[in-house]
Amino acid sequence: MLSKNQIKLIRSLKQKKYRLQHQLFVIGGKKTILELLNSELKLHQLYTTTLDFDVSDVLQTIITPNELHKISFLKTPNETLAVFNIPKPQPIDHNKLILALDNVRDPGNLGTIIRLCDWFGVKDLLCNLETVDCFNPKVVQATMGSIARVNITYLDLESFLSNQKGIQKFGAFMEGESIYSMELPKSGILVLGNEANGITKIIASQITERITIPRFGNMQVAESINVANAAAILLSEFKRGTRTTET
Amino acid sequence: MLSKNQIKLIRSLKQKKYRLQHQLFVIGGKKTILELLNSELKLHQLYTTTLDFDVSDVLQTIITPNELHKISFLKTPNETLAVFNIPKPQPIDHNKLILALDNVRDPGNLGTIIRLCDWFGVKDLLCNLETVDCFNPKVVQATMGSIARVNITYLDLESFLSNQKGIQKFGAFMEGESIYSMELPKSGILVLGNEANGITKIIASQITERITIPRFGNMQVAESINVANAAAILLSEFKRGTRTTET
Repeated sequence: MLSKNQIKLIRSLKQKKYRLQHQLFVIGGKKTILELLNSELKLHQLYTTTLDFDVSDVLQTIITPNELHKISFLKTPNETLAVFNIPKPQPIDHNKLILALDNVRDPGNLGTIIRLCDWFGVKDLLCNLETVDCFNPKVVQATMGSIARVNITYLDLESFLSNQKGIQKFGAFMEGESIYSMELPKSGILVLGNEANGITKIIASQITERITIPRFGNMQVAESINVANAAAILLSEFKRGTRTTET
Repeated sequence: MLSKNQIKLIRSLKQKKYRLQHQLFVIGGKKTILELLNSELKLHQLYTTTLDFDVSDVLQTIITPNELHKISFLKTPNETLAVFNIPKPQPIDHNKLILALDNVRDPGNLGTIIRLCDWFGVKDLLCNLETVDCFNPKVVQATMGSIARVNITYLDLESFLSNQKGIQKFGAFMEGESIYSMELPKSGILVLGNEANGITKIIASQITERITIPRFGNMQVAESINVANAAAILLSEFKRGTRTTET
């Protein structure tokens, strides 16, 4: 049974200002919740419509499907909903590859990029303050559990970059050096920009290496690739050399 | 001014069976429509709420914003909507890299994959019959105009693959040879599977090379990457060697 106040709290977490105020975020779906319960994230509340959600040592509140529908942000809520504490960002490791986002606005893109960081072992993801909030329910859902395994820090990206001396700062542009012909280092900062407008001028001025993914199609027309796909290709390029010797 | 029959026809094109029956599809947004008008696609009708949509030699029907709202599939329709003829698939070029999809269901993923084919110069995209229809409005929108530049063929993928002798058939699996340590050819067929379940057994039996994108994160947990991101990384790997000499 849910109280009115509980419903009000959970529903409020759809909005960033209430997530910040309560330092809580919501996630739906058994599979992802199980992953998050096995992570370092701290559970606040777990609500489920099913008695067979098998997690020992976790206090569950049994609710009705109707109650679940009231608190879920999904159109077809999936039996279980959890509220977790927003983790404190950890110190950034400057000796590894760091990914930084400048004005990425689409929740699906950010979620996918977090999942890619997890896949490619990128521990630190930096987001400028205009990038969509990573605890937005759509982002959390799109990360498929990876939100628990990537250290995400929101910061003034320009001032952060300007303070990083002696580190290569790569920026993905439509024009730049081909990533296929460069020797990419194991550490450095890789910056990706907004879906429609790319990297902003103010951030571009901090970039030390302008890089590009070469286009193989009709040069006249194929306009761009999606920022999450660009992240996929670039992270793959940065990491491939660290694993195998090129043939 | 739109007739009731015109409204009925356009709205019906949201459904695959009516698209097949009329051999027409719908696209919204000035920028993409301009791209498509410059392609080999044949325009059927163009509807616009603005007098300044500058396309000469094209018959435009001026409509009201209210009428546009009635025929558009977008929540916030963008001034202009066009109906194009569905193009006839062209013969498949077996001497180049061909991408094939086995049960890709998400319209956004298919749209993004079409855009990637365009970027990487992959002319032929094959879809098994259960893959989402490429003229679904959400797919067309996500291709950002690339729908006009990729030859998409829906077919019985198993029987097609079994008839291809002497061609390498690559399949993306969770377990397989690392794409970073393989020599990838300029021609061949690359198969990607369903978002949740990967390549079906029946198609897997036709694959000659099982390949995988190595994982760099925590082996225990990072589960998978999105199929469009896998397409991005794999197409990049197939194409990178054709452009530059490895260092």
